[in-house]
Amino acid sequence: MKAICLLSGGLDSATCLAAARLDGFDCYALSFDYGQRHRVELDSAEQVASALGAADHRVARIDLRVFGHSALTDEIAVPKGRDEWAMNREIPVTYVPARNTIFLAFALAWAEVLEANDIFIGVNALDYSGYPDCRPEYIRAFERMSNLATKAGVEGRTRIAIRTPLIQLSKADIVRLGQKLGVPFELTHSCYDPDPAGRACGACDSCLLRAKGFREAGIADPVLAR
Amino acid sequence: MKAICLLSGGLDSATCLAAARLDGFDCYALSFDYGQRHRVELDSAEQVASALGAADHRVARIDLRVFGHSALTDEIAVPKGRDEWAMNREIPVTYVPARNTIFLAFALAWAEVLEANDIFIGVNALDYSGYPDCRPEYIRAFERMSNLATKAGVEGRTRIAIRTPLIQLSKADIVRLGQKLGVPFELTHSCYDPDPAGRACGACDSCLLRAKGFREAGIADPVLAR
Repeated sequence: MKAICLLSGGLDSATCLAAARLDGFDCYALSFDYGQRHRVELDSAEQVASALGAADHRVARIDLRVFGHSALTDEIAVPKGRDEWAMNREIPVTYVPARNTIFLAFALAWAEVLEANDIFIGVNALDYSGYPDCRPEYIRAFERMSNLATKAGVEGRTRIAIRTPLIQLSKADIVRLGQKLGVPFELTHSCYDPDPAGRACGACDSCLLRAKGFREAGIADPVLAR
Repeated sequence: MKAICLLSGGLDSATCLAAARLDGFDCYALSFDYGQRHRVELDSAEQVASALGAADHRVARIDLRVFGHSALTDEIAVPKGRDEWAMNREIPVTYVPARNTIFLAFALAWAEVLEANDIFIGVNALDYSGYPDCRPEYIRAFERMSNLATKAGVEGRTRIAIRTPLIQLSKADIVRLGQKLGVPFELTHSCYDPDPAGRACGACDSCLLRAKGFREAGIADPVLAR
């Protein structure tokens, strides 16, 4: 069975890919070059896809900068040192408008071409940094739309399933699951604002959530400890 | 009020843009360079946007060729001379997987940035060449998903509406509406397989549907008659 696996190169998507492999899927990993300031994650994605035995890995180039307006693609500063209260209350400027919708739309296109029924995305609804498009009700609505959008859906041949194995896990659970599944943590990249050498800043939302996850799981992070 | 208007440069999207203008919207026209063999339509889009007084027009570059598998982007021949029976029964090879889903996802991103609540798309469910993502049930599902995907939806500030003023119209109705609204038909481009000078082939599904529309409306087409 073929599955499309969205793969940013971070901890979550790498663990999600490993979970898809464990479920017996031939995984077609999909990453995006969208003008992100942390493009170094694409190198991580390639290495993670290879290490976890993905059947294929492609990078789709899309230009989200045409609309501007996110710290991940613009020259707006990435916020540092936010506490959990702020992360849970406030949608941060690192939110890229409609990003998961765009990523899932591309995954749906590739699924149609490959006649795959399954799309994996490593969103989680707990430690989710306040992004609206990480919530279960959003994922279900996308899935429903997918089954009306496609040839296969119209012909009643298949049902597209959007699979979110991490959606109910805390970051610590994800770290534990990743370790159990042999995710090469040392190859992953989570930071939104790495230095020119690609090293994590340790202070953006993504670094803070990652550090908390490893700490609570009682596992050493080979990346942030470097 | 701001609205995003998907604009391919063809008859339908131009008429849709004119309908949005008539409704009093400031229109932000959005086109895509997706490796289509009929890239000449982007020149049409630019001219149509200007002629109909769009507030802005942007072209997002996305690479659908990374997945291949459509006569619109690949080296597969565009089918010619199909009759209506075939068009209504068979999804053609010119179908680009998940194209409207991808286009609407980008429109949603721009809508979030501009804080626009309305997205216009010129799909129609009658003379629709058999594409699944032109049907009303698909559009409603996309709309529902949109309101779960976005900051504004989560905060309850706004509701995204996907507007489809042409969805119940025949091609002849669209031509009549376009004429009434002053759509510059001579600037539009519908053909999937133009010659190197950008002239319409007259035999692909899109040309045949357009010709039928003008014929049934009793209006001369300044493009196909050239």
